[in-house]
Amino acid sequence: MIYTSDSIEKMVNILASLPTIGKKTAQRLTYHLLKSDDDYIESFSQALLDIKKKVKLCSTCFNYTETDPCPICSSEKRKRRIICVVEDPSDVIAIEKTNEFFGLYHVLHGVISPLEGISPDELKIKELIQRIGNIEEVILALNPSVEGEATSQYIAKLLHPFGVAVTRIAMGMPIGSSLEFTDELTISKAIMSRFSI
Amino acid sequence: MIYTSDSIEKMVNILASLPTIGKKTAQRLTYHLLKSDDDYIESFSQALLDIKKKVKLCSTCFNYTETDPCPICSSEKRKRRIICVVEDPSDVIAIEKTNEFFGLYHVLHGVISPLEGISPDELKIKELIQRIGNIEEVILALNPSVEGEATSQYIAKLLHPFGVAVTRIAMGMPIGSSLEFTDELTISKAIMSRFSI
Repeated sequence: MIYTSDSIEKMVNILASLPTIGKKTAQRLTYHLLKSDDDYIESFSQALLDIKKKVKLCSTCFNYTETDPCPICSSEKRKRRIICVVEDPSDVIAIEKTNEFFGLYHVLHGVISPLEGISPDELKIKELIQRIGNIEEVILALNPSVEGEATSQYIAKLLHPFGVAVTRIAMGMPIGSSLEFTDELTISKAIMSRFSI
Repeated sequence: MIYTSDSIEKMVNILASLPTIGKKTAQRLTYHLLKSDDDYIESFSQALLDIKKKVKLCSTCFNYTETDPCPICSSEKRKRRIICVVEDPSDVIAIEKTNEFFGLYHVLHGVISPLEGISPDELKIKELIQRIGNIEEVILALNPSVEGEATSQYIAKLLHPFGVAVTRIAMGMPIGSSLEFTDELTISKAIMSRFSI
């Protein structure tokens, strides 16, 4: 017998099933939770139910939201003629944190991946095409992976007939990195995309 | 605006308040939970409430349990004349995993620490003394820290009048370690506690 309580064992197993959390951390967290006060546990328990009950997808941009349209799509302050296309809702947060982009978003919920059996139909691509109407620029901010690249090419091809400007985020050396520890693909991309100074 | 949903923000903050989980991991976990199915979320939510509602302290050994006495204290298979004293309930699991100890436990719920204002009265020390009756040996398995050492000395002194054998777990080089990367205190302890072969 390892655990003297089924509830403890269940809690450890649930936590250990989460990404980045191993059995040891799960155990440590469970013992931490056992010492936490009732209010904290109740709000934790309720927060879990709430994200499932209250959070939906915005019917315009498909980001997570509690209101439809989402706060970004319904904001008067955003530039409504520029759409930034991302793979996942977490990418929206990454871009919002830069405080450099004030347009709208479109979340694809994945990338085209023949290996994982994800076809264009399973992504929010046709919903993007339907939004193009009076859009001036579509920024493809998909990850710089093989799939992200292929999906960007696919979308760019679909968008060209609409006469909308289609751009891709730059790929090169990350700020603060060093040539010594950067992979060859990134360095060769950085050399190819060099610019005059 | 970073998060487009209050529920998401709340979930991220709750997870980030747990030990070993930073803001980035909390965010990643929240987005994982958003994609999880309803059954998983409900059982997670319920498991949290259960550990608070069902888990109590055993009135004999003060380990976490759902029944009183706990499964170890009430087991016929355990040797009832030997008690292993530990700091925390998680230490019981660590020892149970060795499959080498078949006696009973006593959880102190901490160690004496003047710096943190923890006096002997706040630990389950007098409850240990009350159990001594027909006990043959008390193994002090407190952590090899200054506080663990001081608490062991304190308890040993209290137990000596009862004529019970009081032992302390060995301190020395961990299995698989190397002298080169072991701290001086551990090496000097290992030399002092050397034995004939």
